[in-house]
Amino acid sequence: MTESDLLVVNLTPGRWGDPAQVVELPAAALEALKHLGVRRPRAKTAPKDEAGTSTEVTAALEKLLGTEHVKTDLDTRWAHTRGYSTPDLLRHRAGDTTDMPAAVVYPGSHDDVQALLTACSEQGVAVVPYAGGTSVVGGLAPQGTQFVAVDLQRLNRLREVDEVSRTATIEAGVRGTAAEALLAERGYTLGHFPQSYEGASIGGYAATRSSGQASAGYGRFDQMVVGLTLATPSGTIELGRAPMSAAGPDLRQLVLGSEGTLGIITSVVLRIRPRPTERSFEGWRFDSFDQGLAALRQLAQDGPLPTVLRLSDEAETAINLADPNVLAGGPGGALAIVGFEGPRTPVRRAEAAEVLTAAGGQSVGEGPGETWRQGRYRAPYLRDPLLDEGALVETLETAGFWSTLPALKAAVTDALVSSLSGQGTPPVVLCHISHVYETGASLYFTVLSAQTDDPVAQWRQAKAAASQAIAAAGGTITHHHAVGTDHRDAYVTEVGPLAIEALQAVKQVLDPNGILNPGILIPAR
Amino acid sequence: MTESDLLVVNLTPGRWGDPAQVVELPAAALEALKHLGVRRPRAKTAPKDEAGTSTEVTAALEKLLGTEHVKTDLDTRWAHTRGYSTPDLLRHRAGDTTDMPAAVVYPGSHDDVQALLTACSEQGVAVVPYAGGTSVVGGLAPQGTQFVAVDLQRLNRLREVDEVSRTATIEAGVRGTAAEALLAERGYTLGHFPQSYEGASIGGYAATRSSGQASAGYGRFDQMVVGLTLATPSGTIELGRAPMSAAGPDLRQLVLGSEGTLGIITSVVLRIRPRPTERSFEGWRFDSFDQGLAALRQLAQDGPLPTVLRLSDEAETAINLADPNVLAGGPGGALAIVGFEGPRTPVRRAEAAEVLTAAGGQSVGEGPGETWRQGRYRAPYLRDPLLDEGALVETLETAGFWSTLPALKAAVTDALVSSLSGQGTPPVVLCHISHVYETGASLYFTVLSAQTDDPVAQWRQAKAAASQAIAAAGGTITHHHAVGTDHRDAYVTEVGPLAIEALQAVKQVLDPNGILNPGILIPAR
Repeated sequence: MTESDLLVVNLTPGRWGDPAQVVELPAAALEALKHLGVRRPRAKTAPKDEAGTSTEVTAALEKLLGTEHVKTDLDTRWAHTRGYSTPDLLRHRAGDTTDMPAAVVYPGSHDDVQALLTACSEQGVAVVPYAGGTSVVGGLAPQGTQFVAVDLQRLNRLREVDEVSRTATIEAGVRGTAAEALLAERGYTLGHFPQSYEGASIGGYAATRSSGQASAGYGRFDQMVVGLTLATPSGTIELGRAPMSAAGPDLRQLVLGSEGTLGIITSVVLRIRPRPTERSFEGWRFDSFDQGLAALRQLAQDGPLPTVLRLSDEAETAINLADPNVLAGGPGGALAIVGFEGPRTPVRRAEAAEVLTAAGGQSVGEGPGETWRQGRYRAPYLRDPLLDEGALVETLETAGFWSTLPALKAAVTDALVSSLSGQGTPPVVLCHISHVYETGASLYFTVLSAQTDDPVAQWRQAKAAASQAIAAAGGTITHHHAVGTDHRDAYVTEVGPLAIEALQAVKQVLDPNGILNPGILIPAR
Repeated sequence: MTESDLLVVNLTPGRWGDPAQVVELPAAALEALKHLGVRRPRAKTAPKDEAGTSTEVTAALEKLLGTEHVKTDLDTRWAHTRGYSTPDLLRHRAGDTTDMPAAVVYPGSHDDVQALLTACSEQGVAVVPYAGGTSVVGGLAPQGTQFVAVDLQRLNRLREVDEVSRTATIEAGVRGTAAEALLAERGYTLGHFPQSYEGASIGGYAATRSSGQASAGYGRFDQMVVGLTLATPSGTIELGRAPMSAAGPDLRQLVLGSEGTLGIITSVVLRIRPRPTERSFEGWRFDSFDQGLAALRQLAQDGPLPTVLRLSDEAETAINLADPNVLAGGPGGALAIVGFEGPRTPVRRAEAAEVLTAAGGQSVGEGPGETWRQGRYRAPYLRDPLLDEGALVETLETAGFWSTLPALKAAVTDALVSSLSGQGTPPVVLCHISHVYETGASLYFTVLSAQTDDPVAQWRQAKAAASQAIAAAGGTITHHHAVGTDHRDAYVTEVGPLAIEALQAVKQVLDPNGILNPGILIPAR
């Protein structure tokens, strides 16, 4: 049992990441923004305090958790307001307090969470679980209701490591960074490194089906979970007596991705692996994205499967790479990052090199690979100074089967270009593949344009166009960002009203008074 | 689109498998049975006809499907009565018609199934989906209700192969053997080879979370399903727009394992792989089961992972092996089968050999490996002649995490020995591991004893003792046989009443009149 608080990065509300690592835009970037018509927006506005929760509710919560674990001051509540999508950041800058919790509570155990949910359900008080706070899909902003944010940071223990079964029982409030540090002391790793790694937590990973940059080698987070404990207003559910079972539906997979609407995951049992001692990250150049895609598909289907496998399209390759040598093979190239970790790294790397070469790839060495690896959590830091300058910058993602990917990529790109150009702000759209499977892969888009006078509405329109394009091209509305409120309508369309009704029925059993994340993931019944 | 009827093995009701492959017990086995006190049971009884379904219901079904696709004759109904558990076979021999369907219908398409369910729901007629009919857990015997069996054999098409994404869309009624033959024409395989392979179908695999003998290499069936179509009395649900998604809970995993209680799966989209051109199956001897278990764990956790990986305990090794050379290393040994298929077979085999040797294993060559491979569907054929002689023979299985397996194995063995010895019929109990994961494995038990005068009650008592032992030792009640009616109470205990209530709520939405497999998997609400 180790306290992990010391290992936590303190996120600044409204700006991404560790304040010690703030990024300034290079002069060339500032110059480029001018060509997009970017202009400095109006100054920021401080939030005004709004009514907190009733003293009656506060008193009940204080009685349950202790006075020091219930906070209603403006700073704490503002720091728990929304997540890190661009609309979230823009609303933060505008001092918009509409989604601010009425109180923030800090339960210290599963029993605390269970008691809290029972009490809030009895009193009809809405509850939003808050772990890392890194949602980019409106997962922390229930609509049209006052609510209490349940900050899980005190559920911060690595409870057990079973070295024979290679599993670890970890509480929901443990940050990804802290989990890795705690496991490293024992020689293990989860291998889960999403872009939100510095801020996100184990409970959030589970509730949102997170997928890390090393998903090819270590799997998605939902593939790491072999057991979980869920607190609900109706009681506790514990699942996972074996890695796999034929005892009915896999109910773990019903809880994973439920985004706090069915209960609060208080701990998970995770598959762990020995920390790798070998590593190799290499850049590979392809003449085109399509050529690179075929090469990635071959590795995903016939192996050897790298630990990290990514491919930037021509536009992203051109923008991201300062090193012109990467494009020495000619203009219009697409850069892949092929990373191996763990046993037999040199052998697997050599085998992959054969496949990639035969597929038309050209090694550009470990330089670009290491550059990517070392800078892999830096991208989100760029967004804040870009917003400062008046740029609109946001990402969105999808996934599909291999045969659908080229059309899916074209459709989403066209929708974004068309919508933003139609609003007078022609964008740059970049795309990469960052998660591969035997049958398909993810597509991740980055969009950059000038802001209009109402950038939140501007993005809403572009995002709606992209979401429609995804649906029409047969992709899923999200591969790893989750649903939240932003994707809710698209999610309903994707799985259909009957499946949604089934989920609502589950919610009715576990959360009969509808206090858990109302309006997130699924519409109220 | 290819008809696959020709490839289907015609199962004999009440006896396992292809009648052309009937097995006779060797003289030594007959001698051994005497030591267990086995005596010939009473003669079989033919079934007597009971009332079929009402002419009103029959007329409605005939109107929907055509007269030729609705059958009420005794032979057809008797052939659709129960599955292949030992109690099922014993009841069959006794001519017990209590679980016989009132009619058997043969829909020809998803739309037929959808219309049928709508009609039966309106009329309150219970419906049992019947695909391969190979349940060994009472999955075809809803309790206390008249019902119509829905035989899916006309849903027999391989609808689409996407060679880029490596997926195949296959209808639910296609037998495993037929699916493999159809895919082989295109150069592909599912790699799903359960013990029930000769009889079971794609829809049954999906509804019960089947796991095949090559699960280490090809995965479980639930890991092969990337999409599915479900007909329910409330309408159709289609799932699976990408290999993986963060759009809410993975609802595919809610349908898989639902055992016909939430709807009828009419087709699935499955991950396929190229047919392997290389193969090597090798036997390995370990001094003890525990030593072999440690070796299997090492391959499962650190690789190279074989395609097939099995380990018989000392008792099973001694009984199954005619070849005394296998035990040349000394008495009390445990035999493992280590099979590789596909690319790099010789290299992977050599790497595995290093691991196995270091773990104390001794290669006994390809002889035992090939013997196992060629005889791998033969074991169930032995049961019928054993029952003929008056032996009680049955299997049961569980799974757990690696650290729990030794105690789990001991607890189940003790429970079976204690229960059957207490009934005056001391058993032989054999065990093997046949499915491995990074964090755990399955345990499969075979039990052999003399029958008492009431062998169904005799087994019920032994099974209850084993089930309690599994629960107490933390295992799951079934790794790949599914729940049916036999495991229902244990399943409720395993996931808890709140999870069951959530499933019942889903069922209420999809099957509001409770016509689908009533009493199977979950108790009526």
